[in-house]
Amino acid sequence: MPEVAGVSLATTAAGLRYKDRTDVLLAVLDEGTEVAGVLTRSACASAPVDWCRSLLEHGKARALVVNAGNANAFSGRRGTVAVEKVAEAAAKACGGTAGEIYLASTGVIGEPLDPEPLIEVLDTLAKTAGPQNWAQAAEAIRTTDTYPKYATRTARIDGVTVTLNGIAKGSGMIAPDMATMLAFVFTDADIVREPLQHLLKVATERSFNAITVDSDTSTSDTVLLFATGGAGHAPVNNPADPRLADFQKALNSLAEELALLIVRDGEGAQKLVTIDVSGAASDGSARRIAMSIANSPLVKTAIAGEDANWGRIVMAVGKAGEPADRDRLSIWFGETRVAHEGVIDPDYEEPPVAEYMKGRDIAIKVDLGLAAGSARVWTCDLTHGYIDINADYRS
Amino acid sequence: MPEVAGVSLATTAAGLRYKDRTDVLLAVLDEGTEVAGVLTRSACASAPVDWCRSLLEHGKARALVVNAGNANAFSGRRGTVAVEKVAEAAAKACGGTAGEIYLASTGVIGEPLDPEPLIEVLDTLAKTAGPQNWAQAAEAIRTTDTYPKYATRTARIDGVTVTLNGIAKGSGMIAPDMATMLAFVFTDADIVREPLQHLLKVATERSFNAITVDSDTSTSDTVLLFATGGAGHAPVNNPADPRLADFQKALNSLAEELALLIVRDGEGAQKLVTIDVSGAASDGSARRIAMSIANSPLVKTAIAGEDANWGRIVMAVGKAGEPADRDRLSIWFGETRVAHEGVIDPDYEEPPVAEYMKGRDIAIKVDLGLAAGSARVWTCDLTHGYIDINADYRS
Repeated sequence: MPEVAGVSLATTAAGLRYKDRTDVLLAVLDEGTEVAGVLTRSACASAPVDWCRSLLEHGKARALVVNAGNANAFSGRRGTVAVEKVAEAAAKACGGTAGEIYLASTGVIGEPLDPEPLIEVLDTLAKTAGPQNWAQAAEAIRTTDTYPKYATRTARIDGVTVTLNGIAKGSGMIAPDMATMLAFVFTDADIVREPLQHLLKVATERSFNAITVDSDTSTSDTVLLFATGGAGHAPVNNPADPRLADFQKALNSLAEELALLIVRDGEGAQKLVTIDVSGAASDGSARRIAMSIANSPLVKTAIAGEDANWGRIVMAVGKAGEPADRDRLSIWFGETRVAHEGVIDPDYEEPPVAEYMKGRDIAIKVDLGLAAGSARVWTCDLTHGYIDINADYRS
Repeated sequence: MPEVAGVSLATTAAGLRYKDRTDVLLAVLDEGTEVAGVLTRSACASAPVDWCRSLLEHGKARALVVNAGNANAFSGRRGTVAVEKVAEAAAKACGGTAGEIYLASTGVIGEPLDPEPLIEVLDTLAKTAGPQNWAQAAEAIRTTDTYPKYATRTARIDGVTVTLNGIAKGSGMIAPDMATMLAFVFTDADIVREPLQHLLKVATERSFNAITVDSDTSTSDTVLLFATGGAGHAPVNNPADPRLADFQKALNSLAEELALLIVRDGEGAQKLVTIDVSGAASDGSARRIAMSIANSPLVKTAIAGEDANWGRIVMAVGKAGEPADRDRLSIWFGETRVAHEGVIDPDYEEPPVAEYMKGRDIAIKVDLGLAAGSARVWTCDLTHGYIDINADYRS
């Protein structure tokens, strides 16, 4: 991963829950860094999410503190106090005010977070932060993730090359409209809050908000985009500025890569499943049908069993509560059309599809034959591994 | 099971899919039998569901034919033709017209149903039908069910004792608003279509429509209530007739017993989970929150792991999209209040709850502290058994 001017990173093991691994990340940001964010829609959001939501109204950042092991969610007044204490200590260590310190926590819900172990490490982290620790940063924010998730892109603004680095975590409780998913993107582009928020919203809709592992939405979902301005081009103040086109493209691509890293690492996942729905009454309708397929335990277990069970796709289309006509439905697995106009395709032969289902990347396409609405979402299969992980995570 | 005047049953093995087991049920009904029904809301309903829906408009029945092994869903014109042929053959065998023959099919979706093996057995079934074959009837309609499901009640109308016998099947694809769930209730009460439909709707709402195994809704869900009138009391024509009170109570109780037999037999299920939500903004809101908990894979795997993971309950409340205030939430497992007003209960001790979670019947209660809305739903845990069954059902 390249460096991003204006961003320094440090990680350490504060022993919040795990043994023998890092669990805290500090990202120190140059003064003047702008920030945009997309947060969980859960009605029971965590204390750090509440904190970030209130801070995003002014949109300046000096540091980001992330811990793994305890989500500081459903932790009441103690959770709020813990957030305030950590923010104050981070401001002391990194400069700026507590109101410029962004926080994210991931891990167990419902247990109070003790802020002291975090506070104790902040000074050392701030002193040792460096521009190159991207892989370590992605490591420190993992929970049940089986690998660290990071990606990079470049874009051109005004003839100047800007860099976008992203890190993410998440493998369960991943659902539409975010998940126990944390993703942080850092860029040296010089873009102020309003256009930055717009860019992030567009990128999130077709990436982090288009993935689902288990239909469960977390209390802690957080995507933040920090722009330090270190690249040195003229600032961009307007969301409609055409100079942003290349940046938007790079950000979309980066967000999609991070999102797919998350789905592919879905708890127990063995296969990445891409679901395309077309011919729907509207894009929104297509999306709801695609999510109905993506969240169906029966579809997901069939894929785990490498079974091209298109009957379960029909079931999931039917239950979505959206316009559909059984007798106009067509369904593909990979390149093979399995069903056409409501019945099994007369040319369908199972052996090549059975072979296709053994792969690690499965594409399902559904055409409703009604209108022009379309959507793409991603999910994973539902395996014994998911049960293993989640029947024995906390205790 | 007692007899129900006006109902005779017979079963046989037509070899539709399974070997060495019965897979067809014929119920012969006396002339004049009234019928009410509640059918799947799937936009891709099966051919027999479409058939029953059109028949229910007049509401007279002479026979019910049910087969297991093939759902005759997503079978196009051939599926419709198969339904018509079976109905015509059954009318010939049992009397009446094809429009008085109710049909239900359960099993694999998307493969055409060959009507011939069914048609061949109908004459013999009609000749051998008897009033006592209730357990055999419940056996013949099973798919992945691990036990046959039947129950009985009596009620008094006008001083006359009437009998209600019910059989049901279903263990996966069980979700709100029905499931691959078939349930048939037969009574000798004399109640015409309009009040009969009302009675069934009320009973279904708090039983079959309040259970979920995996959030998947089938293309074939069917609940039918047949009233032969054989008990001999004066007919009931009005849904508001106070003579129906005891019958409604008995029907509710019978439907709940059958629904719980289904959930307890949920694919791979080891535990029956009762979820009570109170203090919600409305009954509808309470129900949606209860279903969000009941359908959460993370909640269901935690219960499989015998973990009183109330953090996941909070998550499921938060994602429901309904009014909720984190700081007013209280959560109980069994009799133990685990969380109160948004934080862990100060008196909470884990050992007795850990012991409680080892039981086969788990009660979860959530109070939102907002208003008076309440709801009860039932679900089961999500185990390796579910994966085993569904990753290898068709192929």
